[in-house]
Amino acid sequence: MEDKYLLRGVSAKKEDVHKAIERMSHGLYPKMFCKVYPDWLAGSDDYVNLMSSDGSGTKSILAYLYWKETGDASIFRGIGQDALVMNLDDMMCVGATSNFLFTSLINRNKLRIDGSVIKEIIEGTQEYIEKLSEWGVNIFYTGGETADVGDLVRTISVDASMASRMPKKDLIFTNNIKPGMVIVGFSSGGNCIYENNYNSGIGSNGLTSARHDLLNHYYYDNFPETIEKQIDAKVQYNGTHRLTDIVFDQHTLGKMILSPTMSYAPILKKVLEDYKGQIASIIHCTGGGAGKVLHFAEEVKIVKNNWLEIPPIFELIQKESNTSWEEMFRVFNMGVRLEMYMESEAIANEIIQISKTFNIDAQIIGYTDASENAFVEIHHQENKFILKP
Amino acid sequence: MEDKYLLRGVSAKKEDVHKAIERMSHGLYPKMFCKVYPDWLAGSDDYVNLMSSDGSGTKSILAYLYWKETGDASIFRGIGQDALVMNLDDMMCVGATSNFLFTSLINRNKLRIDGSVIKEIIEGTQEYIEKLSEWGVNIFYTGGETADVGDLVRTISVDASMASRMPKKDLIFTNNIKPGMVIVGFSSGGNCIYENNYNSGIGSNGLTSARHDLLNHYYYDNFPETIEKQIDAKVQYNGTHRLTDIVFDQHTLGKMILSPTMSYAPILKKVLEDYKGQIASIIHCTGGGAGKVLHFAEEVKIVKNNWLEIPPIFELIQKESNTSWEEMFRVFNMGVRLEMYMESEAIANEIIQISKTFNIDAQIIGYTDASENAFVEIHHQENKFILKP
Repeated sequence: MEDKYLLRGVSAKKEDVHKAIERMSHGLYPKMFCKVYPDWLAGSDDYVNLMSSDGSGTKSILAYLYWKETGDASIFRGIGQDALVMNLDDMMCVGATSNFLFTSLINRNKLRIDGSVIKEIIEGTQEYIEKLSEWGVNIFYTGGETADVGDLVRTISVDASMASRMPKKDLIFTNNIKPGMVIVGFSSGGNCIYENNYNSGIGSNGLTSARHDLLNHYYYDNFPETIEKQIDAKVQYNGTHRLTDIVFDQHTLGKMILSPTMSYAPILKKVLEDYKGQIASIIHCTGGGAGKVLHFAEEVKIVKNNWLEIPPIFELIQKESNTSWEEMFRVFNMGVRLEMYMESEAIANEIIQISKTFNIDAQIIGYTDASENAFVEIHHQENKFILKP
Repeated sequence: MEDKYLLRGVSAKKEDVHKAIERMSHGLYPKMFCKVYPDWLAGSDDYVNLMSSDGSGTKSILAYLYWKETGDASIFRGIGQDALVMNLDDMMCVGATSNFLFTSLINRNKLRIDGSVIKEIIEGTQEYIEKLSEWGVNIFYTGGETADVGDLVRTISVDASMASRMPKKDLIFTNNIKPGMVIVGFSSGGNCIYENNYNSGIGSNGLTSARHDLLNHYYYDNFPETIEKQIDAKVQYNGTHRLTDIVFDQHTLGKMILSPTMSYAPILKKVLEDYKGQIASIIHCTGGGAGKVLHFAEEVKIVKNNWLEIPPIFELIQKESNTSWEEMFRVFNMGVRLEMYMESEAIANEIIQISKTFNIDAQIIGYTDASENAFVEIHHQENKFILKP
């Protein structure tokens, strides 16, 4: 699968980018989930600044196809949510719980994307911000830029940035993972109380692969604006489905694969308030999936031997693409998009109860142990496999 | 020309976008050059927050073509500068002079754009930030995101966001333009003391038009990754030039059209410190050109009867495209990318002297007068023309 990934012009590791940025500031502390800077904005020694940039990636292509096939532009509301949550949940991993400024950056091909789409993206973002505010997570949407750049962008890209300022004493140090800890895993989907619809848990990662592996060649023939022609046609839209196919319960593939990234912000807000100092590390399992933690952990073995039930969308992708389970756990969140590491199993169980009050499933999915080199060991069905940094 | 603009999938006015965002927050004050928000980040009544998003637009396509033709990836350094300055100079128009947090958002087609390009963009950004810091303009580069999204982006898009926090008492209210004021215009190019090379003054606006009007059909045939095929081939790369043509002095068209957007930050920093309270309004003449001020001014006639010499790049674009001068002034900065409005002609002359210490030409380019409806009157050669909102 990694080869197919590369064939499709996507690098999970982005080695050349990491090389390009190696001389950039790493912030005040090493290996933080979101880089932390001195209080440049207000000059206090007791505060730090955070800034983040991310977007919905190629998920917007799926929304475009869905819109073209069904006429339903409201599918783009979720793309606004994706861009928001990809920034917000990253930032909350270091302990930020409020004082967020947010801005959108939309590049569109005006010949293909009209104002109705932009309206849905922005209103979808606003609506989710309003929902989160009901749980005390306050985000100020400062607007942004929509550029007409059809020579550059085939359809539409939706990105965003976020800035925040927080007390230094509230920081969670991501690399604080030690042997003898338990890991709480939080479900990436389901029917949480602050969302209206069933969420497949897909998030915003691995979607170039998933799109090509699930959808059939009809899209290659009919939507050339969604592919890069240099790439071998054999790895483009080589699946069997249409977006309108019912694939699970009464859900179409379109709705499943376009489930917006569900924020953990309401849970994190409550947990960070009530259990300050009890949580060692929080990982937002985006690019890198179950191995994401290896960007931060050192000298520790991370055993995940009690995974949550894998949501049907990932079973479907695995089956359709014939990807190894090991690779699936490297690319997708596989149903766990947030991990918390802590010493106390009792506290872990209390936090799990909090999660359940939001109707978000959670459980102790594993533990840590001493090891010279960091690695993740995943127990899946009868198998074990190792993810290395 | 406006028709050709639309044919090319670019709308100067973006009516549908404005409609889509009409329900968004307009910030604390109406008609500010950069929207102003309460101090969400630190909760002080005496401070405000600012946030901005913008990028180099389709200028990155020109850099891509130049790189492919010459092998010189360093041309992308200026693209990093463009994305930075488009945000920074907007923000300084409302009086912000320091405490800037900056982040980059790069979307690339990995099959076409390698790490060497990313490196130049990031290092170019860092280098300009370091230069500006020598003049007391302090920007903290917090990193950002580089995404591989080849199905979405044909080559590369370079965007950025900036956040700041400033004292409320230092705000410049953009809509504070009254009859009886003088207008200082600042040259958008030349050889300013904080840049190493001659700057054509082109900035980052109108470059979809300029690219197609200046470059010849060779690019249409050889670089299909830089066009939208739905657009009539007649309006794509319908000029006469190659980027390597010498078009002015010893400068190639490539170097001229890719001159990075020159920041006015060092001048603004000094002027805002020394003449606080004396400046009514500051306009960054980006999209909308000499008519940009009409987004903010009310009940005033704005006469620009003493324009700076028009730089050769704009003469060239006008000649090649046979665009009316009126339209040229609507789309491009035409050599004046910053305007200051103030009551005192004496202060205006002092500010002009400050600009000249940076080797940036400046002069009183006009005045304001009472009028029921706002409009701009431009005197050009023997002609006058009117720009309306």
